Amino acid sequence: MPDHENPTVPAPAEAPRPGDTYVQSFARGLQVIRSFSAQAPQQTLSEVAQRTGLTRAGARRILLTLEGLGYVRSNGRQFSLAPRILDLGFAYLSSLPLWNLAEPVMERLVEDVKESCSAAVLDGADVVYVLRIPTHKIMSINLGIGSRLPAYCTSMGRTLLAELDGRTLDQLLQDVPPVRRTERTIVDTAALKEQLVKVREQGWCLVDQELEEGLVSLSAPIRDRAGRAIAAMNISGQVNRTSPAYMVENFLPKLRAAAQDISRMLQHKS
Amino acid sequence: MPDHENPTVPAPAEAPRPGDTYVQSFARGLQVIRSFSAQAPQQTLSEVAQRTGLTRAGARRILLTLEGLGYVRSNGRQFSLAPRILDLGFAYLSSLPLWNLAEPVMERLVEDVKESCSAAVLDGADVVYVLRIPTHKIMSINLGIGSRLPAYCTSMGRTLLAELDGRTLDQLLQDVPPVRRTERTIVDTAALKEQLVKVREQGWCLVDQELEEGLVSLSAPIRDRAGRAIAAMNISGQVNRTSPAYMVENFLPKLRAAAQDISRMLQHKS
Repeated sequence: MPDHENPTVPAPAEAPRPGDTYVQSFARGLQVIRSFSAQAPQQTLSEVAQRTGLTRAGARRILLTLEGLGYVRSNGRQFSLAPRILDLGFAYLSSLPLWNLAEPVMERLVEDVKESCSAAVLDGADVVYVLRIPTHKIMSINLGIGSRLPAYCTSMGRTLLAELDGRTLDQLLQDVPPVRRTERTIVDTAALKEQLVKVREQGWCLVDQELEEGLVSLSAPIRDRAGRAIAAMNISGQVNRTSPAYMVENFLPKLRAAAQDISRMLQHKS
Repeated sequence: MPDHENPTVPAPAEAPRPGDTYVQSFARGLQVIRSFSAQAPQQTLSEVAQRTGLTRAGARRILLTLEGLGYVRSNGRQFSLAPRILDLGFAYLSSLPLWNLAEPVMERLVEDVKESCSAAVLDGADVVYVLRIPTHKIMSINLGIGSRLPAYCTSMGRTLLAELDGRTLDQLLQDVPPVRRTERTIVDTAALKEQLVKVREQGWCLVDQELEEGLVSLSAPIRDRAGRAIAAMNISGQVNRTSPAYMVENFLPKLRAAAQDISRMLQHKS
């Protein structure tokens, strides 16, 4: 039984209130799922209520709902997420037309260049990783599927930002202004937009240590039949192993060929 | 605007009905998410309604809710899932204590044995993949994070089933009886339970082509501080490359050492 709660007195049913619509209820349910993390893998009712801003009664109702549906487990006092949660993300990943097509092409590319290769899509001001083939180096960069990075200072992000129309881009840069992550990060909006024009013209993007010291990344777009860049793929490396010049000379032709292969398969598919 | 619908007449608000509780509403929302797949990456309102058994008005309300929350995108007529869905699965994966710990150990193992290595947890009668380090062979087995396989005929599944108490196991085998997947699949419950006793005693499990012709897999448990097997990890191979005898002789000591390393880290962590 949950702590601080008299099990003989049921929590009062929440009366419908103005604004407490279905949308909000659903949003809160998803918020409860997202309140679990590496820092909070197990939570009590009180902790969930505190992290989400819900009342204890509200948090309890949602946790029991999620438990009833198999998305949450509890030992009475502690709640944790259940593996069924992955079905939701799996629905998304398997609905991406590029997902199965891209994997073998990317595996061959990793085998060839011996550096990690990823694919990502744009979500607001972030890129979200949807596929990642790590190289088997101990120092490989730890970025799993679903990871987010800011778009403005990453090669895949710039590849995708370069495709936006001017108004959408301006709005986005206004809502989430660039911040300095390293000494090299371009934070000036005009300079960033110049870079994006260049990226669009040349059809690829290199970002040299603007996200993190030592990290260099090279990216190219994956295009659907209508020519839209639905995703970007990249090769990332450490600057002390693979200089930017080395990457452009040795990896760029292979990366672009792989991105074009995937685009072509995608265009012939649907 | 959605087809077959007069945009000037709003859908009637659904009156609360007996049984139409919050639980059901939330369940339906998640069901809408899960109605998207590789076969149905984009759906119209009608298709979602048909696939989920919801009314058009109900499906519309949920789709607009999901769109408002950024989990679904639409071009007016067609709906598709948005990358934000991955945040939900990411909340689960990052809440797994083993997740970050296991990856480097598994990468070293893959580097050593040159075969794919995975970790999975038990969810009902299935194992669910939570981590996978593929080997860079073109013919690698395509099983991503979130994939499900039946527990009774897989090595990770048997490793985890072997830990269940007798009653839970009996109930599970009754609810989801074993079916023949290959000529070798053990479908007799008594014979399966004998195998599970053996697996538990020896501390590892080999499954030789019971899930699929040609596929051999070797598994060991990952245990938390209380000694509970919270996950299993495996090495899988193709029988024509790596015979069962070869795997036991060459891979088993390495697999068990890796599983023990991860278990030890896990036990020292919390």
